[in-house]
Amino acid sequence: KRARDYGLRLGVVPAGPLNAITDVPGVRVGQITLQQGTSVRTGVTAIIPHTGNLFQQKCPAAIYIGNGFGKLTGISQVDELGTLETPIILTNTLSVPTAADALIDYTLSQPGNEQVRSVNAVVGETNDGYLNDIRGRHVTKQHVLDALRQATTGPVAEGNVGAGTGTVCFGFKGGIGTASRKLPASLGGYTVGALVQTNFGGVLQIAGVPVGVELGKYSYKENLDGSCMMVVITDAPLDARNLKRLAKRAFMGLAQTGGIASNGSGDYVIAVSTAYQIPHESKSPFDEQKVLRNDNVSPLFMAAIEATEEAIINSLFMAQTMTGDQNHNIEALPVDRVVDLLKKAGVIK
Amino acid sequence: KRARDYGLRLGVVPAGPLNAITDVPGVRVGQITLQQGTSVRTGVTAIIPHTGNLFQQKCPAAIYIGNGFGKLTGISQVDELGTLETPIILTNTLSVPTAADALIDYTLSQPGNEQVRSVNAVVGETNDGYLNDIRGRHVTKQHVLDALRQATTGPVAEGNVGAGTGTVCFGFKGGIGTASRKLPASLGGYTVGALVQTNFGGVLQIAGVPVGVELGKYSYKENLDGSCMMVVITDAPLDARNLKRLAKRAFMGLAQTGGIASNGSGDYVIAVSTAYQIPHESKSPFDEQKVLRNDNVSPLFMAAIEATEEAIINSLFMAQTMTGDQNHNIEALPVDRVVDLLKKAGVIK
Amino acid sequence: KRARDYGLRLGVVPAGPLNAITDVPGVRVGQITLQQGTSVRTGVTAIIPHTGNLFQQKCPAAIYIGNGFGKLTGISQVDELGTLETPIILTNTLSVPTAADALIDYTLSQPGNEQVRSVNAVVGETNDGYLNDIRGRHVTKQHVLDALRQATTGPVAEGNVGAGTGTVCFGFKGGIGTASRKLPASLGGYTVGALVQTNFGGVLQIAGVPVGVELGKYSYKENLDGSCMMVVITDAPLDARNLKRLAKRAFMGLAQTGGIASNGSGDYVIAVSTAYQIPHESKSPFDEQKVLRNDNVSPLFMAAIEATEEAIINSLFMAQTMTGDQNHNIEALPVDRVVDLLKKAGVIK
Amino acid sequence: KRARDYGLRLGVVPAGPLNAITDVPGVRVGQITLQQGTSVRTGVTAIIPHTGNLFQQKCPAAIYIGNGFGKLTGISQVDELGTLETPIILTNTLSVPTAADALIDYTLSQPGNEQVRSVNAVVGETNDGYLNDIRGRHVTKQHVLDALRQATTGPVAEGNVGAGTGTVCFGFKGGIGTASRKLPASLGGYTVGALVQTNFGGVLQIAGVPVGVELGKYSYKENLDGSCMMVVITDAPLDARNLKRLAKRAFMGLAQTGGIASNGSGDYVIAVSTAYQIPHESKSPFDEQKVLRNDNVSPLFMAAIEATEEAIINSLFMAQTMTGDQNHNIEALPVDRVVDLLKKAGVIK
Repeated sequence: KRARDYGLRLGVVPAGPLNAITDVPGVRVGQITLQQGTSVRTGVTAIIPHTGNLFQQKCPAAIYIGNGFGKLTGISQVDELGTLETPIILTNTLSVPTAADALIDYTLSQPGNEQVRSVNAVVGETNDGYLNDIRGRHVTKQHVLDALRQATTGPVAEGNVGAGTGTVCFGFKGGIGTASRKLPASLGGYTVGALVQTNFGGVLQIAGVPVGVELGKYSYKENLDGSCMMVVITDAPLDARNLKRLAKRAFMGLAQTGGIASNGSGDYVIAVSTAYQIPHESKSPFDEQKVLRNDNVSPLFMAAIEATEEAIINSLFMAQTMTGDQNHNIEALPVDRVVDLLKKAGVIK
Repeated sequence: KRARDYGLRLGVVPAGPLNAITDVPGVRVGQITLQQGTSVRTGVTAIIPHTGNLFQQKCPAAIYIGNGFGKLTGISQVDELGTLETPIILTNTLSVPTAADALIDYTLSQPGNEQVRSVNAVVGETNDGYLNDIRGRHVTKQHVLDALRQATTGPVAEGNVGAGTGTVCFGFKGGIGTASRKLPASLGGYTVGALVQTNFGGVLQIAGVPVGVELGKYSYKENLDGSCMMVVITDAPLDARNLKRLAKRAFMGLAQTGGIASNGSGDYVIAVSTAYQIPHESKSPFDEQKVLRNDNVSPLFMAAIEATEEAIINSLFMAQTMTGDQNHNIEALPVDRVVDLLKKAGVIK
Repeated sequence: KRARDYGLRLGVVPAGPLNAITDVPGVRVGQITLQQGTSVRTGVTAIIPHTGNLFQQKCPAAIYIGNGFGKLTGISQVDELGTLETPIILTNTLSVPTAADALIDYTLSQPGNEQVRSVNAVVGETNDGYLNDIRGRHVTKQHVLDALRQATTGPVAEGNVGAGTGTVCFGFKGGIGTASRKLPASLGGYTVGALVQTNFGGVLQIAGVPVGVELGKYSYKENLDGSCMMVVITDAPLDARNLKRLAKRAFMGLAQTGGIASNGSGDYVIAVSTAYQIPHESKSPFDEQKVLRNDNVSPLFMAAIEATEEAIINSLFMAQTMTGDQNHNIEALPVDRVVDLLKKAGVIK
Repeated sequence: KRARDYGLRLGVVPAGPLNAITDVPGVRVGQITLQQGTSVRTGVTAIIPHTGNLFQQKCPAAIYIGNGFGKLTGISQVDELGTLETPIILTNTLSVPTAADALIDYTLSQPGNEQVRSVNAVVGETNDGYLNDIRGRHVTKQHVLDALRQATTGPVAEGNVGAGTGTVCFGFKGGIGTASRKLPASLGGYTVGALVQTNFGGVLQIAGVPVGVELGKYSYKENLDGSCMMVVITDAPLDARNLKRLAKRAFMGLAQTGGIASNGSGDYVIAVSTAYQIPHESKSPFDEQKVLRNDNVSPLFMAAIEATEEAIINSLFMAQTMTGDQNHNIEALPVDRVVDLLKKAGVIK
């Protein structure tokens, strides 16, 4: 069960109907989970922002780097041009090149892209090398293409799936998590969805309750390091500049869970708007954009903070104990005990 | 009383003896409070990292910008050269030029600086224009020089003092706050001190308890905007690159309190190390630096997060209800009710 | 006489009618020159992008930092919000606070700004402390306000005027320079204007001719340090992101003249578009922007490179030998010899 | 013949003995050229900064992004940690993932790296898709590993080799180029070497002579777009912050050749110091660094500008006319005519 199913409410903005990144119309997610033998514990998560040809109809996008000890590809072109031209792939650290190569395959082979000679593949990762035989690089291009092909709207699988299959978060089993927020009509009615791949350390707190300390597992007591990939998509009409600001707020959501962005952390946020597209080619020399004024972005900032926070918590609630490479074992968050703690603190009635 | 005096413990790292930025040896703070008539509610806070001639013996330093809607001066030179060459002054938004001018006076007139022709004044601000007649620009150069002259080690006044005299935080009276963390000897024994000028919005949470919502005062319900200046000083030997990373963690501390870095926010962190100095002139072409390795900075990151969080909370606990310009009134945080909420949540026993 | 009057043609894009920043419709420049007694050699240059209330009708803008050893104020807010809300003032290093204070006066006192409580003053500088008694800080707020009041369209005075009164460039007398480029209608017909305050070092080359070496005055042989402030304004509809890219090209124009951005250099470019404004307040939650597509900005890049290059050369051609503080003397560029060198190289027929 | 063999002298700093990046002690370069059938015109260039295990003994490094329309991998980790832990590979745009994958192979398989689970592969590229069947992705991991294996000190092949096999520069055949500068002992005696992969547009000038215009081939007249990868290595003891500044100067060298960093350009500089290493693991919590003071970096800046400029010119002088994919043909720079132009301008005696 997800955090909200236990009665947990994080923040003040209401969630969307699925409480998932797929609450943003058109967004699809596909995941391939590789769990083979005793040592393969990894996978692929694909996020596709809209149903068209993404290369020909690019999305405004931005990337914020919380802590840059990571291998996210595609950063500089998104920064320079303010657009995303491929789906986003998440996988493990050493499989980033494979996934990027697959994204190139995917893009080159799409109808309409016969003349494309340059593709800015965006691939994020965290390091699942504790539970997964990461040096074996078990992710293939086909896995990535399969994740893209299977991508669908609707509910998103969480926990030990896709790129989150083998990850560890706050010393417990992490994974994929998602959540969303939907602003009321008076604030534009926009949806902000988050999807995270959690693999980081710190002092876990849930709705402020110091769960990590209570359970005796936290940075400072022991060395919990690692990374978090965050994807934030909104149907609000933001340009790249304000998407970068939105992305930074997702990182604040990570901070809310007690994340510390330790030295070894690769904490990245990719923020995308689906409100309008920027065509690869155009007869007009102009892009005509109707974008939200700076004055109106703060509620979206709140939505991004909250959706990211809840997505991280969901990844923990939904993950399950796993044994993997070298017989390494990581326990799931003991949800019953956590719920007790949350009840004692009055956070869950 | 400060938050800790009520039994509140934030985070897992122990505080320094004063729980103040002045726990870092050599750091001095001086404050001038301007509370005159019905409309002047402003002031100056000066932070001096070491007792020598700061221009001649510069500190390694870095600035992180959380949200850049603010007027902090001196950014680019600190970024380019990695050094701080003046004390740090905090004041109100429209008095930044006055304070910068005073810092130039201060620097030019120090013995040994007779040939100095360039001074990178670092002045931060938040906007106290709700309680203070900010357009009247009541801060003078003399006020700034007085704050510098009075700067002293030891306990630091908090709440409605200095640059925090007229500020508003989470809808309650904000002000100056400070706190510190001291790592155990096994982690280097370093101290990290924070001093903040709180004037920002969001959904206040204290030790995770949703105080803002409980008290019916939070962003989203109403528009709470504004800024936060944060100063973090450490005696750990960090170079400018790692100081920039440390600065970013202070911003994570702000996130922990429920800050949202709204559109109108000027959220800046100035991070300084006192562990070594970089001489303005040197016979050697080299700087010889013994700096902490990347691998060893994470505990300092935690210390910065926690010290900043607690400094913000202290600013609220220590501030008092104020009536100011145009009869505007801002209530202090109702500490008794807050303490009740914290007890109910089990955060204070 | 200006460089072009000698037959010099730099680059391939045609100049505007005035070959000045004021070729961009609506742009006004005002300058106050302070040349008093034997040691005051400084001044103020004001650039006003449009004739309305700039605070209420902000211009899209961006700042690029070539080398950040300088004191430009207003950087972070322009970066965060993508707008300029005051005129741009250039002056000497130690008078930046005075000029910023004057910009606040100017803005607060404009009709319609009665409720304004926050002003992001943008003031650039270079250090004229060799010829000018810079420690005396002879620029007053009134000088700045006078420069603003006198600002006018039409030809712009160059050389030893305004903020360029006491500057030194490539070892010769520098100063204020300006130039422009106008794209043909097929490329949009846009104008790009540049205005520079030259005070930097390197190995001067004019149209590629190694004038610095020929005249025996260049970095490496001797230590020529210093800074360059560059302002680039265009009527092309660029958003902040593409203005930042345009700004960077001005820095490439500096490189074309042989500038090296030495350690002590404060090299900044402020880029502004006058094609549309962003209102301070609006009933609509949206800004509707018709901006040039990424694909169409390269000719503007060329225009910015060339206009900046020529503005720098103009500053040298128009400056005159000056004796100043402590009897320091700086010779003007020996234009006759330079013209001979240019003729010999076939650059001038 | 290289530019210098015709008597051309660029800049004022003397070249190193080979006038190549390999003048920096320990630096090795290896190149694989793929020229097969009528349409394969691509390759790999590998640069290895020192002879040890680079992952275990990392080099201080920084990356500067001139224009970010490109696919360079590894940016954020170099930025965050200030170190390079793999050799640098240059190849074509769509083969970046293959090369990154090969760098992971290379690193994982090195003795001493048996426990390595995270590798930050640094791979740069330009787009050779006009002459090369880039969509065919003909570069294999083996090609990359071969380039690494063949890497050697000594002279470096230039022109149509390695990653420069199919590139186009200023409308002429581009390729790989290299050059170096060696400061006199009085300035530290340091060497700065540059290696470039030239594939960009603009208005070619050589020693300032407007060769592009004279030959009727330049941006503005026609659309010459594209990218430039630049690698700068020095034995001067610079930390990551000053390496970033050095990297920016290489981009100024590009500007000196008439490059305009057009919209479609991916202009990146990777700067590396070989003066000291940062061990992956250490018993000490400290790095002890003896680095050049800010005050002493300007001569290195000049060296980087000049070496990059000359490396670009060398790439043009050494490249040869090529026919490739779809029968596309690109002429080499007509060196004889160019030399005539340079003589006429007095640049070559």
